[in-house]
Amino acid sequence: MVTEDEFIKTFLKPLAKNMKGSLGLDDDAAILPHKPGKDIITSKDILHADQHFYKEDDPANIAHKALATNLSDIAAKGATPLCFMLGIAFPKAPEEKWLKGFIKGLESISDKYNCHLLGGDTTGTKGLLSLSVTIFGEIEAGKMVKRRGAKPGDHLYLSGSVGNAALGFLLKSDQLGIQPTDMGFEPDLKKWSLTSEQRQQLEESYLRPTPRVELAEPLKNYASAAMDVSDGLLADLPKLCAASACGADIELASIPFSEPAKIVFAAQKAEQHKLHNLCLSWGDDYEILSAVPPENAVNYVNEARIQGINVQKIGKITPPGQGIRLLDETGTPCQFNSLNFSHF
Amino acid sequence: MVTEDEFIKTFLKPLAKNMKGSLGLDDDAAILPHKPGKDIITSKDILHADQHFYKEDDPANIAHKALATNLSDIAAKGATPLCFMLGIAFPKAPEEKWLKGFIKGLESISDKYNCHLLGGDTTGTKGLLSLSVTIFGEIEAGKMVKRRGAKPGDHLYLSGSVGNAALGFLLKSDQLGIQPTDMGFEPDLKKWSLTSEQRQQLEESYLRPTPRVELAEPLKNYASAAMDVSDGLLADLPKLCAASACGADIELASIPFSEPAKIVFAAQKAEQHKLHNLCLSWGDDYEILSAVPPENAVNYVNEARIQGINVQKIGKITPPGQGIRLLDETGTPCQFNSLNFSHF
Repeated sequence: MVTEDEFIKTFLKPLAKNMKGSLGLDDDAAILPHKPGKDIITSKDILHADQHFYKEDDPANIAHKALATNLSDIAAKGATPLCFMLGIAFPKAPEEKWLKGFIKGLESISDKYNCHLLGGDTTGTKGLLSLSVTIFGEIEAGKMVKRRGAKPGDHLYLSGSVGNAALGFLLKSDQLGIQPTDMGFEPDLKKWSLTSEQRQQLEESYLRPTPRVELAEPLKNYASAAMDVSDGLLADLPKLCAASACGADIELASIPFSEPAKIVFAAQKAEQHKLHNLCLSWGDDYEILSAVPPENAVNYVNEARIQGINVQKIGKITPPGQGIRLLDETGTPCQFNSLNFSHF
Repeated sequence: MVTEDEFIKTFLKPLAKNMKGSLGLDDDAAILPHKPGKDIITSKDILHADQHFYKEDDPANIAHKALATNLSDIAAKGATPLCFMLGIAFPKAPEEKWLKGFIKGLESISDKYNCHLLGGDTTGTKGLLSLSVTIFGEIEAGKMVKRRGAKPGDHLYLSGSVGNAALGFLLKSDQLGIQPTDMGFEPDLKKWSLTSEQRQQLEESYLRPTPRVELAEPLKNYASAAMDVSDGLLADLPKLCAASACGADIELASIPFSEPAKIVFAAQKAEQHKLHNLCLSWGDDYEILSAVPPENAVNYVNEARIQGINVQKIGKITPPGQGIRLLDETGTPCQFNSLNFSHF
């Protein structure tokens, strides 16, 4: 068992060593680093056991996910990660082995994206393990890419592919013998003839999402609006459209899915529509949805590619009256189950 | 029942109306307000039901406490409140009546201290109601009052009095029929002959702590080190001493207690020492402990008084070798049970 004092001094303090303003985690408050001409932007994502991760998950993955989901928000705004505050509530004094894994996972993603610990709070809880990260990023003053800003005619792009995290979550739940509720159908995982690498790819998407930090620069340079897809494409797209006061036409056939996802769709043909819908409605992919004026499109795609990220055009922004339409291959609007998502 | 979307749009959005950088809570990130020549400082306090408050508490008090504990940290650093991020996890969709109370409590303290909502995150949890606030304050660059900085010879001051929250917690627990553990003795509340006003004063200290926001200016002008007493005087004083690499002599007789606390001590004479110790070791008072160089002492006390706050000299900073000593009326060091506190 590790005490609160040891946790802060032995485990957390090294993560703050590069942050002068952290005051060695020896104070009640920290000083944010700030450069003239830059805006500091901030975002917050909280993660609770058995809601955003399973408490049985590898602690390194839990830590990774807590920071990755926050880095994703900063990236979607075109900003560079600065540092983060960590709040953590333990249901009981943590074991040293668990903590070592947790800190290793946190340090690894923190070092990778040069986003270090500035401060935070630790406590006990009679509930479940929970993490609360407030992240900071910096960007040239006035340059933050907002949800508002998209204009009719802008192209809609999506990075990577969607649905891997949803399928990975089903695989992980099955492994733990947990039956996920509210799926609206019975996924039949025995039919999914995936290689172990493909299974791993899907599980990793759920357990260790990759924040699209490298897309920040192309977004800042070329996008009119952007957000990360944390609650599912069909839940997040309406938010971007609402903030921008516009509609959108999505070409369903152009939405990118990974190879393993396509294998799953083919394996459960009768449920293909529902699986497809799940992949579009379920979150945790942390890909980035962006609106890009047509004249910037070529540069955006090219700069993203230089950063190693594939962005796919999935539709376009339309005038407000038109709402959000999902078009099939003939251009006919389709009915989808739900465009709404609520955490509670 | 209120949905997540309604909660954000109807309940939270009005709290962000004065913050341009909140973007109407319509985005993934917010922009921190920043004035040239100022440092932005930040602190984070997380509160979990049945750990930091009872879930049965008035929701207005829960909200008040969540922001008050954070404002207290900013005040202790000599800074002016700027804004805050709120993370909230609900075990089930909240009732409208509960939410109205919560928002009313939050708005009231937010307006009082001109510290408005900038952004945050809402989610569900399979655990208990939990709140996570990250607060921001501003102060002239380089002027933050740290825990480090106290020098031998500095006077130690405490604002207000300590122990009210501990006694209020006992009263509240008794009311709810909950037996608090780890007290080390059996408080006998039937013996406490308090008037209803006195009971209320103690309970309010626990339920609705007053952050010492008005003490920020005198602290900034005159203190060499400061911190808020959130974990108990005997737990927090060693932290200030450790950060400042020094010791302290505390004159026990000079530690201020409220009138109701003195009545409780007198009512349970046999347990007086333990009650006294509880009041010194238990947190939640959110008073401010400060070290002030002798030449600043008169000005500090006077400026604090002008701000309506009584600060009491309780001892002085000593050289590091001497450690922390609690002296009785004859100047003899006393033994106290514990100077350690851990949340888990």
